[in-house]
Amino acid sequence: MSGTLYGLGIGPGDPELITVKALRLLERAPVIAYPAPEKGESLARSIVAPYLSGGAKKTEVVIRMPLVEARFPAAAVYDRAAEELGGHLEAGRDVAVLCEGDPFFYGSFMYLFGRMAARFTVEVVPGVSSLTACAAVLGAPLAARNDVLTVVPAPLDEAALKARLAGAEAVAIIKVGRHFAKVHRVLDELGLVGRARYVEHATMASQRILTLDAVSADGVPYFSMILVHKRGEAWT
Amino acid sequence: MSGTLYGLGIGPGDPELITVKALRLLERAPVIAYPAPEKGESLARSIVAPYLSGGAKKTEVVIRMPLVEARFPAAAVYDRAAEELGGHLEAGRDVAVLCEGDPFFYGSFMYLFGRMAARFTVEVVPGVSSLTACAAVLGAPLAARNDVLTVVPAPLDEAALKARLAGAEAVAIIKVGRHFAKVHRVLDELGLVGRARYVEHATMASQRILTLDAVSADGVPYFSMILVHKRGEAWT
Repeated sequence: MSGTLYGLGIGPGDPELITVKALRLLERAPVIAYPAPEKGESLARSIVAPYLSGGAKKTEVVIRMPLVEARFPAAAVYDRAAEELGGHLEAGRDVAVLCEGDPFFYGSFMYLFGRMAARFTVEVVPGVSSLTACAAVLGAPLAARNDVLTVVPAPLDEAALKARLAGAEAVAIIKVGRHFAKVHRVLDELGLVGRARYVEHATMASQRILTLDAVSADGVPYFSMILVHKRGEAWT
Repeated sequence: MSGTLYGLGIGPGDPELITVKALRLLERAPVIAYPAPEKGESLARSIVAPYLSGGAKKTEVVIRMPLVEARFPAAAVYDRAAEELGGHLEAGRDVAVLCEGDPFFYGSFMYLFGRMAARFTVEVVPGVSSLTACAAVLGAPLAARNDVLTVVPAPLDEAALKARLAGAEAVAIIKVGRHFAKVHRVLDELGLVGRARYVEHATMASQRILTLDAVSADGVPYFSMILVHKRGEAWT
């Protein structure tokens, strides 16, 4: 009998923000897989590292993304990974793929899911996404009542960003990184800088919360987010 | 010294989808508070019930919402709850408020937060939201790459719903409940019924996944969601 492929949401960074379910499946899985840059450590693995020190030794499959293609998935990388993981499943071994945040919220797991769900049993375990983690550490409710909440990737071009921000009550701008200056400009034009809150590496040891004006545009990491709520603090 | 007010995201329904952190704080808190309908059981309390059977007896504060005001918060109810919880905090007792899903994703915790954050230490612990839980059980990635993801409350009027759905790549329609017929009509007019996936009570024992045409409009619960992705299955 084939093993099961688990897409495990491991949460936004604080190891304690993993779910009880994901932790149980992680501890039980004989094979774990996780994304990593071309060289260097995997963020996903580092999040669960505190849980891997005891217990039986696991097989670890590292899915390395070539730097040049870091923005979008490299089909060949996922083809190869799906083949390798499929071998473990066919041999009856469960495989847990570690997914930062939630597997289906802008996560790369969907590329394995798309390749493997028709052939194998796949279970997706939802996790705490960066979206709600950023709101929590900022002390900024995302949306209430009948607010429309829009999640906007910062790589969109300036006109698209402006249109999306103009038409929404509550906005989360994700993947800010090197797009910070553009985003700042758009928020400024819309008169929303005072309503915007910035955080990077939410819930991690390296977390920083800054006003927009205090952010240095050339030092913004990929894992950063800006939340904007036009109604502001009127939560009561 | 005053106690700390915790807004604990307890996840979408499956008790195992609570985080390790929320579970630790829950077990430690001498006082827990949770919303409930005017009569009957609290969903939030039922989610964590498996974790409350052992350990020291806790003080429980039930925040009952009058039925007529179930759609939007009743200010007087939250005023009273804030006063009662404030009494526990002033006496040095930590208070854990149980929040279905995530506290800041359309959660009622923000009304306590708005009343209490200036006077007390408040920590928000993010949880797995219904948004990612629904995507997981549907096997439907929410958004990828530079998709804009829009969360739309179903109580919006028909024209607003249509405009929001027409302008988005990926949409989560929340709080469907008695608005199902209207939402179905809008999706039909936009030619999106074939792209829509429906789930109610995701991750709970009562979970149901149905095609839109199989849903009976008069039996749709508040905890239901419709996900639409215009690109469909092109995840690879």
